[in-house]
Amino acid sequence: MKYFEDIAVGERFAIGRHTFKADEIKAFASRFDPQPFHTDDKAAEGSHFGALVASGWHTVMVWMRLMAEHRRASADAMRSRGEPVAGAGPGLGFRELKWLKPVYAGDTIDYANEVIETRVSRRRPRHGLLTLRSTGVNQNGDVIMSFVSTSFVERRSEET
Amino acid sequence: MKYFEDIAVGERFAIGRHTFKADEIKAFASRFDPQPFHTDDKAAEGSHFGALVASGWHTVMVWMRLMAEHRRASADAMRSRGEPVAGAGPGLGFRELKWLKPVYAGDTIDYANEVIETRVSRRRPRHGLLTLRSTGVNQNGDVIMSFVSTSFVERRSEET
Repeated sequence: MKYFEDIAVGERFAIGRHTFKADEIKAFASRFDPQPFHTDDKAAEGSHFGALVASGWHTVMVWMRLMAEHRRASADAMRSRGEPVAGAGPGLGFRELKWLKPVYAGDTIDYANEVIETRVSRRRPRHGLLTLRSTGVNQNGDVIMSFVSTSFVERRSEET
Repeated sequence: MKYFEDIAVGERFAIGRHTFKADEIKAFASRFDPQPFHTDDKAAEGSHFGALVASGWHTVMVWMRLMAEHRRASADAMRSRGEPVAGAGPGLGFRELKWLKPVYAGDTIDYANEVIETRVSRRRPRHGLLTLRSTGVNQNGDVIMSFVSTSFVERRSEET
């Protein structure tokens, strides 16, 4: 990924798109979030959702996977151009995670991140802290989920 | 689960315990959070963690599964005593999700919830809004993650 110094507040980037199929919704929920409106068509029809919906956690896990793939693809592209690649640290946590609209089987979600804050870490001065607002938007333009996360990003060393 | 009226601020309940095995850490991360310190022993040794660690998301997904199992077991026990069981609605979101300590392969985490707020929903007056602080604590007594969540719980109908 880019070095901390090369990341600006306001920057927005798309990280990928995913269509939630019924089988995948049920498989994820059976393992991690076994509530009837996520695992069973008939039960979902009788719920206030009216049809099968993805676990909110599933919509976040797909973000995580797309984010990791996006980072890897960006790093590969930078390396192939001969550019140095900054190390990305682990996440510190998340806040304001909101599930705003249901995600029904067949919905396609576009995921994007926006940089909302950057600052140097006091505890680890070789790193910056990057704060992103991440969103998923469905095919009708509705934001289905949103959260804010902060993670470490390597700073350029003083030599470079 | 219990009806909204039967839930009091300050109530604490254990929901279960889980030991994170190396194979499971790698399998989860390969699918959802493919960062080297979650998927590869050697890479993890060279990272600032010093050894394989579970994805923070994995530690939350295990909470979700234990929570669903706990709810189901409580509902079964209430039904077997002839008590009415309240409906639990979907979660609205999460806040202050913090990964405070790494979870290494072999660590055992005890999960618990504490009720920190209850109030009647303005939008859905037949429901209450239940706010929980959930934590995972490792075998050394360290809190490894913490978050706050709010979800709908059915109120007793006026007839009962």
